Amino acid sequence: MRVLGIDCGGEYTGYGVVEMQGSGRLLCVACGAIKLSPQEKLPLRLSRIFAQLGEIITEYRPEEVAIEDVFYALNVKSALKLGQIRGVAMLAAASAGLPVSEYSPLTIKSSVVGYGRAEKQQVQAMITRLLALPSAPQPMDASDALAIAICHLHTAATLHRQSVSAH
Amino acid sequence: MRVLGIDCGGEYTGYGVVEMQGSGRLLCVACGAIKLSPQEKLPLRLSRIFAQLGEIITEYRPEEVAIEDVFYALNVKSALKLGQIRGVAMLAAASAGLPVSEYSPLTIKSSVVGYGRAEKQQVQAMITRLLALPSAPQPMDASDALAIAICHLHTAATLHRQSVSAH
Repeated sequence: MRVLGIDCGGEYTGYGVVEMQGSGRLLCVACGAIKLSPQEKLPLRLSRIFAQLGEIITEYRPEEVAIEDVFYALNVKSALKLGQIRGVAMLAAASAGLPVSEYSPLTIKSSVVGYGRAEKQQVQAMITRLLALPSAPQPMDASDALAIAICHLHTAATLHRQSVSAH
Repeated sequence: MRVLGIDCGGEYTGYGVVEMQGSGRLLCVACGAIKLSPQEKLPLRLSRIFAQLGEIITEYRPEEVAIEDVFYALNVKSALKLGQIRGVAMLAAASAGLPVSEYSPLTIKSSVVGYGRAEKQQVQAMITRLLALPSAPQPMDASDALAIAICHLHTAATLHRQSVSAH
């Protein structure tokens, strides 16, 4: 299965496409971040994210999309900003007919590092190892997006194992 | 000028298309609300709003779009929800190449009722009078969207008068 993870942010929106191969090995297909100019008007910025996520989906053909669920530790103003970007990211997935799963930051960290309160750097180091990358994915937003994709692949694999053992 | 006002909400997203005629008279072209089912998954709900706003723009051909600016009186959870809908609404306008203006609730109420702390019912009553409607527009979200459109038309008319008198 191939998954696109999206890490929404006001300035950078990270993306990471990860494939779980038959052996269970994880392969980094692509990663990066969409940079937005704070000088640009909001509707234009939203258009750019929507268009670029659409291009990423067309180019790398993920079968599912995973996104961080954020209900925490933010003030109203930043929650509203983040919500706008998140809405457009979900719309990009839905427009391509892809199912979207949401994971809390705690679940993502637990799934990748085995510890929900892990530091960002620990997550990045583990992503580098899990994907056997020559160096840590940059920027941090790209690394976070890969973590979200891996979390979804781990969860899907666990659910699959459970459904196999139940039958 | 013909303006589409959008009032974003978690359950109902109101819309109102208002035209200011040469005489300065305001005409209600269309209004209503897009109802969303809380049972539906979020990406599907966002797709629906995007598609329906696109249809409204295609059918009624507004030249500009106005939307409420919300930074107030909400908790983080509802701000995030509202942000998601707002992002998709702005994207619908930007995708049609329409400029988007944002107004605070205070500005909208002041522009329509002449008093920023007006009650929702006062706004609705004034909208009914300004647009010479036989009865109050329903639901309240549709009435709020008309208020946003009228606020933008009033502001645009004032800016136009100022630029005329300056030359």
